[in-house]
Amino acid sequence: MRSFTLKHANVELYFGPNSIRNLSNHLNDYKKVAVVTGKTSAKKSGALNDVEKILNEHNIEFKVYDEITPNPWASQADKLAHFIWNEGCDAVIAIGGGSVIDTAKVASVMAASGGRSLDYLYEKMKPRSHVPFIAVNLTHGTGTEIDRYSVLTVDENREKRGMSILYPDVSFDDPKYTLTLPRNQTVYTSLDTFYHSYEATTSTLTSPYVKLLSIESISLVNIWLPKALDDLNNLEARYWLLYASMIAGISIDTSSTHIIHAIEHALSGLNPKLAHGCGLGILGPRSVYYTHKTMPEESAMALKPLDPNIKPSPDDAGKAEDVVRKFQEEIGFTDKLSDYGFEEKDVPKVLEMVFNGLRYLHKNTPFKVDENIVRDIFLKSL
Amino acid sequence: MRSFTLKHANVELYFGPNSIRNLSNHLNDYKKVAVVTGKTSAKKSGALNDVEKILNEHNIEFKVYDEITPNPWASQADKLAHFIWNEGCDAVIAIGGGSVIDTAKVASVMAASGGRSLDYLYEKMKPRSHVPFIAVNLTHGTGTEIDRYSVLTVDENREKRGMSILYPDVSFDDPKYTLTLPRNQTVYTSLDTFYHSYEATTSTLTSPYVKLLSIESISLVNIWLPKALDDLNNLEARYWLLYASMIAGISIDTSSTHIIHAIEHALSGLNPKLAHGCGLGILGPRSVYYTHKTMPEESAMALKPLDPNIKPSPDDAGKAEDVVRKFQEEIGFTDKLSDYGFEEKDVPKVLEMVFNGLRYLHKNTPFKVDENIVRDIFLKSL
Repeated sequence: MRSFTLKHANVELYFGPNSIRNLSNHLNDYKKVAVVTGKTSAKKSGALNDVEKILNEHNIEFKVYDEITPNPWASQADKLAHFIWNEGCDAVIAIGGGSVIDTAKVASVMAASGGRSLDYLYEKMKPRSHVPFIAVNLTHGTGTEIDRYSVLTVDENREKRGMSILYPDVSFDDPKYTLTLPRNQTVYTSLDTFYHSYEATTSTLTSPYVKLLSIESISLVNIWLPKALDDLNNLEARYWLLYASMIAGISIDTSSTHIIHAIEHALSGLNPKLAHGCGLGILGPRSVYYTHKTMPEESAMALKPLDPNIKPSPDDAGKAEDVVRKFQEEIGFTDKLSDYGFEEKDVPKVLEMVFNGLRYLHKNTPFKVDENIVRDIFLKSL
Repeated sequence: MRSFTLKHANVELYFGPNSIRNLSNHLNDYKKVAVVTGKTSAKKSGALNDVEKILNEHNIEFKVYDEITPNPWASQADKLAHFIWNEGCDAVIAIGGGSVIDTAKVASVMAASGGRSLDYLYEKMKPRSHVPFIAVNLTHGTGTEIDRYSVLTVDENREKRGMSILYPDVSFDDPKYTLTLPRNQTVYTSLDTFYHSYEATTSTLTSPYVKLLSIESISLVNIWLPKALDDLNNLEARYWLLYASMIAGISIDTSSTHIIHAIEHALSGLNPKLAHGCGLGILGPRSVYYTHKTMPEESAMALKPLDPNIKPSPDDAGKAEDVVRKFQEEIGFTDKLSDYGFEEKDVPKVLEMVFNGLRYLHKNTPFKVDENIVRDIFLKSL
């Protein structure tokens, strides 16, 4: 398992076992660092301990801020920004999955550029500057360690929104830290990778580069996820799932997600207990049906690792849907929206979310997003 | 043929037919632009005309500097830097292949950071700042539009040296501009792509990401170069050759070239009439022999598009050499070093170059570079 570095946009990324040791070369003359985490995984994975050790070796003062929760609220970013600014921290190290890194990205911008997270979510302000930002990624799904996105939920109306906010300056992807991901999160985060790759390949912004990365990513998830589920402690499987997740992050940054993320954001905004990757997995198969109908060539290409016989023709849309559902069943994923309290009567609420606040997510969808389609995807996922 | 954008390191790259129209969005409030070209290709390709038109539409003053030659000397960069600085240009647009873009990169650094090109070539100075730099690439070989490298030849001793100097801020890859590349340059630049990919895959800095890009790149050269040679005006073939060249640029920027580039730099330093890609093609097959012996897995993977039966075993080193030679013969490339005036008696001169000035190029070679190997590669290429 080779360690290596790569550069995408502003990010200098270190990948591989023990890559965190390179943190030493990026501490410059920092006087006081904000270390941002959630409640458990930073400790459980060993990452927090590794980072603290390196900071101590360099005699750098740091403060741990461990209040970030899954599906974080905009107000959490505001609170963290105040902490960073008020403590006069000159760097931020975020140790966690998407929730932690996303929240800390926004906070590190606000600590230097002012404003509140809603100003950035609704594009009333643009990032002018940021506190130097380092990400230590702990899951193989998010892609946020290599992309410019953050997703937060607006406290007032539960609207979950994504935005282009900041590339980390430096990121670390060490598969060792993902060994402690429990079984369900192993599945959910890998589904996140899968749909990042599928949507990026089939969005209106697709390109040969995105296709290349996405197909490789889907192929690796297909090969290595079953092995990781056989033995959650399989470092090689984690290495490839993390790599698949990282290149899927480059894919969505270069292209874009579309319909599946749009609807999922609406649902996990309404019910924060719905894990992002889980929501994608539930909505995915039926969304693939509509996507394959419009982008049969790209869709068939993306799904080739799952089934090389899907034809690049709209006629095979049903088959594409079945293939994705079967793939998910084989990895033991059979969740439904009804498991998370959603019912048929929620349709108007979901439609309102998807067609108001989340309209910005439609623009790269390869087909016209209309109410019938969203209703059908929702109902078929109950 | 889809147009798209991607980001690698600092570069925002626009790819595809007519992508130059996006230049309008990157002219900011420039008052005076230095347009840097060679003698002919910027005009012949139509690129200069397109750029002038856009600059005129925006009422931006510009001065064309057309004195860059192939295999450029360090003194040319110094002269150009003085021009940019003296004219007070606030942006540089380089329109050309590797020679033009490389020289203009160094000059745009010097115009803002001071010093002479030798200071940067020998790492006595580091770039502090640069005049905003835009590259319009006209060949499908260099990779310099997406990587950080420049190569110049030291006037005093003909030492050709590469350095990490600057990523373009914005780059344009329009296959239309490569339609006027003559047959021999079509071959030479594609061989440059091929060896960028092969060396990046087999260097000590290789990674799954580099392998993915490199194998795709070699596969595309193998498919599309013969089609381009059948019809030099085949835009689709040029699109894929240019794409292959660009992703090979990401590969060498993420990994590195090694032995073939080291020896080629020595030779085209001694004889500037030797085109870079031509030199690589001459030295390549025998160098592949040594590389395959040490990195059989990576080498076999890279050569799979040419022959899927090469085994990832040192025993197949001779076969790997033959396969590359056969591939080159099939595209009509049979040049030898003796065609460029090299003789057996040049061995000591070449060894001196490779083991003195160019020693920095050895460090990512997967085997110990000794005199016997370099002598053998040189003699087998005569």
